[in-house]
Amino acid sequence: MEDSDTAADEPVVLAYITAGSREEALRIGRALVEERLAACANILDGMTSVYRWKGVVEQADEAVLIAKTRRSLFDRLAARVRDLHSYDVPCVIELPVERGDPGYLGWLREATA
Amino acid sequence: MEDSDTAADEPVVLAYITAGSREEALRIGRALVEERLAACANILDGMTSVYRWKGVVEQADEAVLIAKTRRSLFDRLAARVRDLHSYDVPCVIELPVERGDPGYLGWLREATA
Amino acid sequence: MEDSDTAADEPVVLAYITAGSREEALRIGRALVEERLAACANILDGMTSVYRWKGVVEQADEAVLIAKTRRSLFDRLAARVRDLHSYDVPCVIELPVERGDPGYLGWLREATA
Repeated sequence: MEDSDTAADEPVVLAYITAGSREEALRIGRALVEERLAACANILDGMTSVYRWKGVVEQADEAVLIAKTRRSLFDRLAARVRDLHSYDVPCVIELPVERGDPGYLGWLREATA
Repeated sequence: MEDSDTAADEPVVLAYITAGSREEALRIGRALVEERLAACANILDGMTSVYRWKGVVEQADEAVLIAKTRRSLFDRLAARVRDLHSYDVPCVIELPVERGDPGYLGWLREATA
Repeated sequence: MEDSDTAADEPVVLAYITAGSREEALRIGRALVEERLAACANILDGMTSVYRWKGVVEQADEAVLIAKTRRSLFDRLAARVRDLHSYDVPCVIELPVERGDPGYLGWLREATA
């Protein structure tokens, strides 16, 4: 199994993003893949978000967008999400990936080359 | 992009929690946000869980609760989930966050101050 | 709170897997639990995947399978997923878990012993 830290190739990460709707998540996810900022975007609709905004606890319907990419692309990916997103301060956080199926990691790196 | 390890502010983490129903996930998520143990709770309903319990493989309908917080709050968050949860041994696990959108991380830390 | 790095017991990880359908995710998840390669499998249906395949950006309906296991089992888990999966190159990636509820981590390690 390829350990992304010791392999010659670069570490891979997940970007965990939330969007205001499934359509927004799909639009942003598709743009990231088309622009090779992510190899793949997984969208989960029907998410309910509870959060504190200006001192009040609010609840909203959202969608989750999980984008898989190379670590060195994360800053550009996050900047592109900010461009495309309807929120001023979108949730874009990076989860480290330790290892993975070698064939899949190879495909992922190629799709974002 | 703000690297949560080198920044003056504290690392951020995701708490991955599973609940017996969407209502339970919402109730716990809202309590965590109201008590500033999490800035935001993302609830995904319709999850199916397969697990081994007392030697038998079981299947149950559950919901996922992802809570975003500061690393130093994780122990208190996990203790509070145990208080509120219907299970004796709830799944509460901490996923590290490497980096994120600076505006979002700033909001997250403020909402849990 | 038990820190999986300093505790005598072994680190725990999440395997993030995508499948072609809910049925496939359930079938693979159940096999992993029955064979003690995972303590628990969480299946989220209704995921939409956008990805680049042979130069074309495609979209497909998939399901997410999150399997919780011990780090030392990840390679065997990934190999077993490849055996059972309908794709040639399935997404099987390892997310590190930093800490968790001690009772839950204990149960997880026992269920995969």
